Amino acid sequence: MGKSTVLAKLEELAAREGLKLQTVNYGTVMMGLAEASGRKVAHRDEMRKRSMSFQRELQAEAAKKIAEMASSFEGVTLLDTHMIVRTGSGYLPGLPSHVLALLKPSLIALVEAPAQDILSRRIKDAAVRVRETPQAEEVEFEIQLSRVMAASCSAISGAPLIVVENLEGKAEEAALRLFNAIKGVGG
Amino acid sequence: MGKSTVLAKLEELAAREGLKLQTVNYGTVMMGLAEASGRKVAHRDEMRKRSMSFQRELQAEAAKKIAEMASSFEGVTLLDTHMIVRTGSGYLPGLPSHVLALLKPSLIALVEAPAQDILSRRIKDAAVRVRETPQAEEVEFEIQLSRVMAASCSAISGAPLIVVENLEGKAEEAALRLFNAIKGVGG
Amino acid sequence: MGKSTVLAKLEELAAREGLKLQTVNYGTVMMGLAEASGRKVAHRDEMRKRSMSFQRELQAEAAKKIAEMASSFEGVTLLDTHMIVRTGSGYLPGLPSHVLALLKPSLIALVEAPAQDILSRRIKDAAVRVRETPQAEEVEFEIQLSRVMAASCSAISGAPLIVVENLEGKAEEAALRLFNAIKGVGG
Repeated sequence: MGKSTVLAKLEELAAREGLKLQTVNYGTVMMGLAEASGRKVAHRDEMRKRSMSFQRELQAEAAKKIAEMASSFEGVTLLDTHMIVRTGSGYLPGLPSHVLALLKPSLIALVEAPAQDILSRRIKDAAVRVRETPQAEEVEFEIQLSRVMAASCSAISGAPLIVVENLEGKAEEAALRLFNAIKGVGG
Repeated sequence: MGKSTVLAKLEELAAREGLKLQTVNYGTVMMGLAEASGRKVAHRDEMRKRSMSFQRELQAEAAKKIAEMASSFEGVTLLDTHMIVRTGSGYLPGLPSHVLALLKPSLIALVEAPAQDILSRRIKDAAVRVRETPQAEEVEFEIQLSRVMAASCSAISGAPLIVVENLEGKAEEAALRLFNAIKGVGG
Repeated sequence: MGKSTVLAKLEELAAREGLKLQTVNYGTVMMGLAEASGRKVAHRDEMRKRSMSFQRELQAEAAKKIAEMASSFEGVTLLDTHMIVRTGSGYLPGLPSHVLALLKPSLIALVEAPAQDILSRRIKDAAVRVRETPQAEEVEFEIQLSRVMAASCSAISGAPLIVVENLEGKAEEAALRLFNAIKGVGG
């Protein structure tokens, strides 16, 4: 389960097929930039609680950094991120237009787990971490909002949009769909 | 019922908590600009019937005016507007990208009443004003379209999006959620 | 059935009412540009299989050409296109922001056939052409995605959005709604 399994399978597949691929995680770049400039954040969940201006500044800085990482890499850069980030002041868009203008994506791939899987994971997380009670309605809303955001990002950037279902035990299939889509835009 | 009750409660709350807040109504600014330049419109429903170029010009002029009002105010400016405005040629977006570029919002808050409440209000309005017969399907469509527009506006502007339910008799709660979100982005 | 019937009725209506109207088909312009520059594409379905960079280049070139066609025509230019184009790498947005910036539409009209009609047509097409098996779920998804894209395009461009239902045997009504919307924005 989880997007990370799909991305791991995708990297294996790319290596096997001779496609040069680097995966960059947006959150990791943000954490790194925060630390490098003495604005250390303990963990990702803490970031969501920091001030909005802090998060949006880091988001913009990270976009510049990622654009550099992509342009200096000879191959495909896959950016692992979220369409929406839950904060105390609502949902921050993961790829707003100013970020898209820097990143100029060739493809927007939305990896979408079933609502039930997301909910189960959240209920498990809630037991170990301090979090709001997960709710089915909220998960459904977030899935829809992520789709709408992905479509908006496609309209803003001009990049094609692919929605890949991430079903339990089908990470291989999801990775293959991503791989084929990536090959298609690379041509 | 109605967004105006929520906004009134929010102003009370802001005053009590010492947050400087001004509320600006987009439609009122448009009416004022129309009148000031000799293009008087009798009432808001009449505006919806005027030519599209007239409405879009006023919309753009009002954005400039509101941006000035916000920058000359030391505190939070809350802009009261609609995500979509029904006209004879379809739905005019309330916050298109050229307006967002001027206003640079810090937060997009969608205050959403239940479909049934909107429908009841429209049926009541229809009895006193000359209007099309209100329909449940149309209300549902407009709620969905408002959400999609709000998400697009979030992606375009980079501002976080919060959807606040405006339930009958729960204006206080809605105002509190708005207040907390506003405080969160102000930090 | 089909959008082409609606557009034919609209042209009749425009001629009868003395409204100068030219209809430009985005795909036809793309095919023409491809041929003119020695990049001939046999038919539209083949285009969807070509490389993404090829399609996106043609899309951008066609936008320039269509903008010229519209500005040199004294009257209304109706651009017949799709909100999304299915390709091997997902859905290419038909009217991304860079295209909208060139075309500056006055109205975005989404002509929407019922899911059942689209599915029936695809099943029929699948029998004569080599295509993927059409699926009800996919059709539903594409209808929703087209709506979301249309709304995003409205938010990006500032043009009003109208959704016109294209029901079996009701092409006349759909054409009339389009005609009235076009007259409304032209004023």
